This record gives sequence, C-alpha cells and structure tokens, in this order.
Amino acid sequence: MSMSAGERSERTANPTQAFVPGHVTGFFSVHPHDDPRNAGSRGAGLALTDGVTVTLTPANETAATTITLGGESVEMAAVTRTLDTLDVAARVAVETPLPVSAGFGVSGGAALGAAFAANACFDLERTENELVEVAHAAEVAAGTGLGDVVAQARGGVPLRLEPGAPPHGALDGIPVRADRRIEYVSFGGRSTEAILSGDTDILSAAGERALATLREAPTLEHLVSCSAAFAREAELLTERVDAAIAAVEAAGGAASMAMLGETVFALDTGLSDAGYEPSICAIHPPGAGVVRPDAK
Amino acid sequence: MSMSAGERSERTANPTQAFVPGHVTGFFSVHPHDDPRNAGSRGAGLALTDGVTVTLTPANETAATTITLGGESVEMAAVTRTLDTLDVAARVAVETPLPVSAGFGVSGGAALGAAFAANACFDLERTENELVEVAHAAEVAAGTGLGDVVAQARGGVPLRLEPGAPPHGALDGIPVRADRRIEYVSFGGRSTEAILSGDTDILSAAGERALATLREAPTLEHLVSCSAAFAREAELLTERVDAAIAAVEAAGGAASMAMLGETVFALDTGLSDAGYEPSICAIHPPGAGVVRPDAK
Repeated sequence: MSMSAGERSERTANPTQAFVPGHVTGFFSVHPHDDPRNAGSRGAGLALTDGVTVTLTPANETAATTITLGGESVEMAAVTRTLDTLDVAARVAVETPLPVSAGFGVSGGAALGAAFAANACFDLERTENELVEVAHAAEVAAGTGLGDVVAQARGGVPLRLEPGAPPHGALDGIPVRADRRIEYVSFGGRSTEAILSGDTDILSAAGERALATLREAPTLEHLVSCSAAFAREAELLTERVDAAIAAVEAAGGAASMAMLGETVFALDTGLSDAGYEPSICAIHPPGAGVVRPDAK
Repeated sequence: MSMSAGERSERTANPTQAFVPGHVTGFFSVHPHDDPRNAGSRGAGLALTDGVTVTLTPANETAATTITLGGESVEMAAVTRTLDTLDVAARVAVETPLPVSAGFGVSGGAALGAAFAANACFDLERTENELVEVAHAAEVAAGTGLGDVVAQARGGVPLRLEPGAPPHGALDGIPVRADRRIEYVSFGGRSTEAILSGDTDILSAAGERALATLREAPTLEHLVSCSAAFAREAELLTERVDAAIAAVEAAGGAASMAMLGETVFALDTGLSDAGYEPSICAIHPPGAGVVRPDAK
C-alpha cells in the first residue's frame, strides 16, 4: 500500500521553528501584476527584533484547525497558500508579541516563517530566494500585504526599489547600527485588504514621491520624516495617530505611522519622551531564518 | 580661512566600528570585466561568526602608516581605495581572529568594514548597496578578491549567481540555522593575486559545473561536496589539505578547502572528529554592519 505525501511526512519529520522579524512600512506605492510573484510595492520600512516565531509540525492536512495564533485557531490564507505551494501539510503555531492587523507584517511573517520551517522540516531543498517567492506570492494572493515578506526576508532597514519577489524585485538598505532602539504604540487594527482594494492612486503617487525624496539622502531620520509626509498626503492618519506623531515631534523626536495599522513607531526614546508607554524593540539586521531545526 | 575635508572631518567625527563576517568560498568561477564593479565571481561559500572588526578614526590622510592589522602597520590596497573612492581620510585599525591570506576574506572584510564605518562616521548618506559596490570595486581593482565582499555583505550561506556588486550581481542563499557549527584549520596562506593572475580557464569551468550541480539540490552538505569536487578538478589541493579533507570524510564528516588559502573547513565537528584541533565558529546570518557608531 502506498503512502500519501501527508502520511510520509508524519513519519519522517519533526517540529521545526523559524523566526521572522516584524516589519513596519513607513511609505509605499502599489504595483499590481497578474502574476503575484511580480506584484508588490515600492517603499521603505524597518525590520524589528519583535517578530514572529513559527513552529511547524507535519500533519495529514493543512486546515483552519491546524493554524494557531497565540494558541487560538485562526484562518491565515497566506500560510495555507504557502504550504499548499510547497506541497506539504502541517500544523503551524504562530507566536508574536506584536499586535495583529496593526501594520507589523504578522501575516507575511507567518507565511515566510512557515516556508523556512517547512523547507527544513521536509528537506525541500529550496533556496532562500525560492522560499521568499513562495511566501510573497501567497501573501499577495491573499490580499494581506504587498511588501512585508521581501523586507522581512532581508532584515535591517529595507528599501523596496522594485516590486515583487526575487528575482523580479530589487532591494537596497539604509545602514544603521544593530541595536538602534525603536518604540511603538498601537491603538488598533486597520484592514490592509480594505485599503488595498480601494482607489490607491493618490497613495501611490505620494509613495513614489517619498521614495524619490528619501533616495536623495538615505538616512533613518529622513525615512521617518518622508513617512510622516506620506501618511499626511495619502490621508491615512487617524486622530490618535496624528496626535501621537505631533507629540513626539514636539518633544524633539521622530515618529510616523505603520502601514497599515493605527500604529505609531518612533526612533530611540521618541514616544517615551512624549509621555506614552510604548513597546520597545530594536532594528533587526538579519532576515528570516530557521532557529530550531528538527530533532535530528 | 576655509577648512579642507580632512580638517573638517577631524573636528566633526569620532571613532566608529563595523563588523564584517569572515567568508570561505567553496568554489568559484572568474568573470573579468573592464569595470571592476561588474567584474567578480560566481560561486558559493559560508559567512562566519569569526570575522573582521574595523575601527575607523578621521585623519588628515589615508596612508600606509594609518592602516593597522592586529596593531601592525600594513598595506591594504582595498581599504585605501575604498576610502579614496568615498573621498575621506582615516586611520583604520583591523582586528580579526582569522588567519590572513588564508581564504577567509580578511582583505574584503576590511574594505567593506571601512566603507560601513566611514559612512557612519562622516555622515556620507550612502545606501548599503552603494557601500558594497565601492568596497567590491576596490577589492577587485586591488586584485585581492572577486566575490568575498558581496557575500560578506549578505551573510548566511551566499550563492553568487551573477558576478559583480549590486545592482550588477545577483545573490541567493541556502537556508541554514543560525548556530550551525563550522570548524577550520589553516596550514598557511596562498596568494589570491598569484592564482587569479594566472590561467583560470580550468578553474572557472570546474566552478561553473559545481554551481550548476549545487543548484540541483541546494543544501549545505551538497555545497561542501561540490566544493571538494571543485578543489580536486581545479588542482588547487595541497598535500596537507587533501589529507585533512580525506580524514574528515573517513570519520563520516564533510570538509573542503577555503578558496584561496591552505585552509580546510568542515561542517559541525568534522575536523575534531578526525583528530584535528580546529578553530570553532558558526554560520553568521546577518551581513556587514556598524556595531558602534560615534559617541553622539
């Protein structure tokens, strides 16, 4: 009697863990394409030490009941699509200190982490670019993000110069020291799908302007000021976000809004200095990777 | 009275430190080009936690007397060219636990570290790709290396798919866990310049074959076996290196030769198991970066 792929997997592989940095996008433009591998965004953001840990265990099928976020069953279309593309079935447990749907790339991180963990767990022999392509295409097809996956795979302070997964897209980065402190507060979630499915012309024009301006003087401080200008021009600011950015700037700091969430991020002690009680993390130079392979 | 750039630098900037992972190339092919930014190598290797720390201080000129390696004055043409291209003058102190001219990318690491440190120290506002391009071109022009700089900038287990600095070159990577142990022993140095200035046709043909073979099943173990085949086909093995690789393989491990040095690297405890007393390090997932900016 022959075994199915699922049965074979259950017998030969063990739990595997991957870590993917969180990612806040400061500004972006939307670049649709019929092929989700080529679709994506241009823009800039920060990869964060607060990230997404994915623990993957072989299973007979990947289903809604086999994906958990903080212990609760959730539907994560980007994760399901990633595993389907890789032709494996697994249970996936996602853990993160980051708020969900608040602009930190949790869904993209879960997809990318699942891809890296599955590659190690099932000995898929894919390269890093191939895994990034699978997770990016799954995230784009799910409608939950356009640029987080390629940025999270790179780490640091990624500039997304051309949209899409490798080898289609092109990245650069702003050099910063590894332990540069980042603070954030989140007032709630925004639906990336709802905004991306609407008219994005004004947003994209503002995003293209921000990228061109940043490239004239690519520093972290300039990234944040270009992001704040973008958030205003694209009319994405809520009252609470607007007030927090203004408070940080009044205290001499630099802050902007995470795309897309009702979230403010600041350099150094910006939010603390303005009287907020932020979460504290740092820039994460490495990209996604496997942290605990199977028990072999 | 107007100040020169050097005088201005002395007054406004402080010491800055960058870290660059070491890098052993397992196999490579040579791809010359009139423009050193486009010249380079295809191949594969490992970025290592044993690396190069560069401490840079503004100076009135960059000269032989202003560059030190382990406290001794040295000539490092790749470093001098890097600083000249960036139009700054500095004292550069290079420290490393790695043997020099033994295939670990110390010269490329010194050039890349100097580029990152100079960017932070002098507020040059260059992107990471731009800094990599400057250091890569300096290393190629100096004749001391063809592919270490782009690999060291990336980290992990870099596959050099297309030669040259970004945006000319193209990289991928083999996913491995961060703490994967690597051992090495070095019996002495080989001159990269001497080998690269000779006939490299046989070497390059073997390197292209190794890359094509590795890409059929891109794993770390396969990288090492493709490297060992390359070293034999390119006739680069010395007796001591050949004996060490054979001893590791006889003990059930995987080892090959670092290009270009009389150096053997092995996965996990390969050299220890074969009775050697190796240096021990690990794969280093992040690329080069500033670890201590100026005192601001």
